[in-house]
Amino acid sequence: MSKLFEEFQNYLNQMNQYDHVITLLYWDMKTNTPKLGQEGHVAALTHFSAENFAMSTSDQLGEMLTGLSESAEFEELTDTWKFIVKRMKRDYDRNKRIPADLYNTFVEAQAQAGIVWEEAKEKSDFSLFAPSLRKMIDLTREMTGYTDPGKEVYDALLDQYEEGMDSATIDGLFEALKRELIPLVKEILGKQKPDNPAFSGFFDPNGQRQVQDMLLSYIGFRKDAGSVGETEHPFTLNFSSKDVRVTNHYYEHDPLSSIFSAIHEGGHGIFEQNINPEYDNTVAGSCRYMGLHESQSRFYENILGRNKNFWIPVYDRLGELLPPFKEISLDDFYQEINHVRNSLIRVNADEVTYCFHIILRYEMEKAIFRDQIPVNELPALWNQKMQEYLQITPANDAEGILQDMHWSDGSFGYFPSYLLGSIYDGMLLDKVREELGDVDELLRNGRIGEITAWLNKKIHWYGSTRKPKETIAAVCGREVSAEPLARYFKEKYTEIYHLG
Amino acid sequence: MSKLFEEFQNYLNQMNQYDHVITLLYWDMKTNTPKLGQEGHVAALTHFSAENFAMSTSDQLGEMLTGLSESAEFEELTDTWKFIVKRMKRDYDRNKRIPADLYNTFVEAQAQAGIVWEEAKEKSDFSLFAPSLRKMIDLTREMTGYTDPGKEVYDALLDQYEEGMDSATIDGLFEALKRELIPLVKEILGKQKPDNPAFSGFFDPNGQRQVQDMLLSYIGFRKDAGSVGETEHPFTLNFSSKDVRVTNHYYEHDPLSSIFSAIHEGGHGIFEQNINPEYDNTVAGSCRYMGLHESQSRFYENILGRNKNFWIPVYDRLGELLPPFKEISLDDFYQEINHVRNSLIRVNADEVTYCFHIILRYEMEKAIFRDQIPVNELPALWNQKMQEYLQITPANDAEGILQDMHWSDGSFGYFPSYLLGSIYDGMLLDKVREELGDVDELLRNGRIGEITAWLNKKIHWYGSTRKPKETIAAVCGREVSAEPLARYFKEKYTEIYHLG
Repeated sequence: MSKLFEEFQNYLNQMNQYDHVITLLYWDMKTNTPKLGQEGHVAALTHFSAENFAMSTSDQLGEMLTGLSESAEFEELTDTWKFIVKRMKRDYDRNKRIPADLYNTFVEAQAQAGIVWEEAKEKSDFSLFAPSLRKMIDLTREMTGYTDPGKEVYDALLDQYEEGMDSATIDGLFEALKRELIPLVKEILGKQKPDNPAFSGFFDPNGQRQVQDMLLSYIGFRKDAGSVGETEHPFTLNFSSKDVRVTNHYYEHDPLSSIFSAIHEGGHGIFEQNINPEYDNTVAGSCRYMGLHESQSRFYENILGRNKNFWIPVYDRLGELLPPFKEISLDDFYQEINHVRNSLIRVNADEVTYCFHIILRYEMEKAIFRDQIPVNELPALWNQKMQEYLQITPANDAEGILQDMHWSDGSFGYFPSYLLGSIYDGMLLDKVREELGDVDELLRNGRIGEITAWLNKKIHWYGSTRKPKETIAAVCGREVSAEPLARYFKEKYTEIYHLG
Repeated sequence: MSKLFEEFQNYLNQMNQYDHVITLLYWDMKTNTPKLGQEGHVAALTHFSAENFAMSTSDQLGEMLTGLSESAEFEELTDTWKFIVKRMKRDYDRNKRIPADLYNTFVEAQAQAGIVWEEAKEKSDFSLFAPSLRKMIDLTREMTGYTDPGKEVYDALLDQYEEGMDSATIDGLFEALKRELIPLVKEILGKQKPDNPAFSGFFDPNGQRQVQDMLLSYIGFRKDAGSVGETEHPFTLNFSSKDVRVTNHYYEHDPLSSIFSAIHEGGHGIFEQNINPEYDNTVAGSCRYMGLHESQSRFYENILGRNKNFWIPVYDRLGELLPPFKEISLDDFYQEINHVRNSLIRVNADEVTYCFHIILRYEMEKAIFRDQIPVNELPALWNQKMQEYLQITPANDAEGILQDMHWSDGSFGYFPSYLLGSIYDGMLLDKVREELGDVDELLRNGRIGEITAWLNKKIHWYGSTRKPKETIAAVCGREVSAEPLARYFKEKYTEIYHLG
């Protein structure tokens, strides 16, 4: 090991310690910190974030990265370290181009817009949020001018969340999906079923916690390398492959929410737990591609979790842990977890109409950044698209354009990741069937572990070292296509809804 | 504010951030970290502890403290800052005298002895632990030679945990207590009652959690400035008065353990939550006197929590949350929570025989440091004293001398704090009665809040700014005496056990 490489390792180690406590502060604020204690945690978070940012943009780091990547030494590095040095060099150059003033303004505006958004949503008044949104749009545009000079703004944003993806590709995928789904959803909604009141009875939150633990363990989330916390909005975070945290919420009159959140976050968690541990605490670990990440959470949640056969080996156990399920047949359960509704709220949507919630947001983001549509015209555009895709109109902004917080913190370009994940899932399902055989049968026989092992080996192991398109090409042997997902929906819902 | 004072404040702020994440890492390791994640947390803990130690012994800090305490500027400081500067100067001088080599050897030996102790306890074999114990005794002796030069070793140790206390004072207190308690306990044990099987049925852990929350809130532990975690060994820690964490365990067949742990840790927590918030994040805050701290946890647990009247306003609620209690009368409950047994394990002991568990350890620590009794003779001495005080002999070392971990990490001199706490409690009870009236009546009428408010005002508010003896003198107007505690025991147990 050269002296330079050793120095670099020590530097990384120090940065990792900062990352580690920043992650921990965030986790604790969401799961354990009492109201009055938030301030102390924020002070610590601010302190260590500043230290970390200083280290990640220091001249010393720049010199080390240049030294390592531009000398003969580079060729002597392992492939993993070659990846790490190249990736860090790119991130470093990108970060260095952002003027410190702009960065600070952006961070401050994010915090401010978050507060305003919350108030606007509460009052269901978009006009309150409009100035903040305008500011976040302008600042985001300015930022990408530095991070991705010469690149079209929205493509730069898409690339930040799902590297290698651009709007030309996504246009093709989403348009293909629309062609299939618009008539399919119309047909399904024509056979709308009534709500099943059995699912709105009382479901003991403690029983829900036990069901969650049972399901996490069943799908392969390892308890020796993971734990669970409680938060209003479920999420997954990780310190390394050895310490992955998921969270959940428990609604007394909606047991399906915690059940499918557990499976969804469990899918994210299984991804992180199974990345090559050599990548721990480096940019090679912890998958940074949001679409690819969502493909795993949504594979477990939808492709597996909304398959009737998934439930056969565990349905009795579900009834033992949450007795009201004893009164619900597996058939009724299956109908309910695949009940298609034209509802207004993305996070409550079924897997089919969910696609439209994302397509709508994607088209609006393009309108914002490409067509430069004025902010005050956005609610009308939202409502028009909602009517077009789902034949409903929000009664107010809170259940329309104000429902998600993403735009308040400038996460433009993030939404498409969710649907890209599902599109990958259609392809992965084809491939699993090809390589492991009948998925229904595997699930029915409690052999889900074989599917998890396949995903571990084919996808998870690589962490961030393979970009999404490369992963799909390597695993599925073809380019990304929406056809398998559309076919999956068509087959599944034709049966469930007895369609033509 | 002078430039020097400002520089000092910035320096303190940086040290506080390290303290903050060290506390958080510790909390998370005990409550949330999965097995495989411990290693990553230990690495971060080691990193930030080293940074913190370097800051707390730096020449820069030394110069600032000298500058502030020895210049005319000192007189311009507020009383709080005078205290902080003086206290930090003393701690600094003390730490600086410890040779770095010795400090590192000590920390390493602590970790090593902890592992060996655990194994020795598991195998119930003192001879395995003896060499580590000998080493910890030698190192502790060597350390106090630096921290407290010229001071008798055991007195120096006592002073570290309960400043201002020495063995001459404690001898007097404990001997007085022994004179009263030896005959009292013999008399009680002569009327030994059978175990009540109702308390070993099944008590739902989730119900126990709800009871805990109800009790914490009832005694005044504030949820907006506190939270609860789950650990095998309950403890309390705090970031500031605004963020205090307690933990608990839940045994399915022993509901009283979680109930009284909740009240005990709640007492510690109420202390920390009610310290003058101006002292937050300084040595003036967070009470560093272990005896005084225990006096508060034990006041809630024993003086209040084991009084029948405490339960009158909440006993119905207890039965609602944990239905088996509906089948147990309040009288039977009261008998059980004050059931005196000559048992072997300190942490399971009732409030009366608990005294002997501490006196025994105190006398052994004196034998170790003053009489220099050889380590291999300690088990025999333990068993002899156990026989003398409680007329029982441990069947093995695990339930004898190996039961507590304190000696493995060199916490010699800590044990007496527990009993000093109870001795203070006897005095505080007298004073509460004098100033607030009949405690039984206050409790019976659900007016426990008045007692909490009294303790807040008389004790908690001062944090670490008043030493224990000063606190007792200020609140009780007299020197520390064991007489009130002995009287409390005598009156209470004469009634419960219908003694002569």
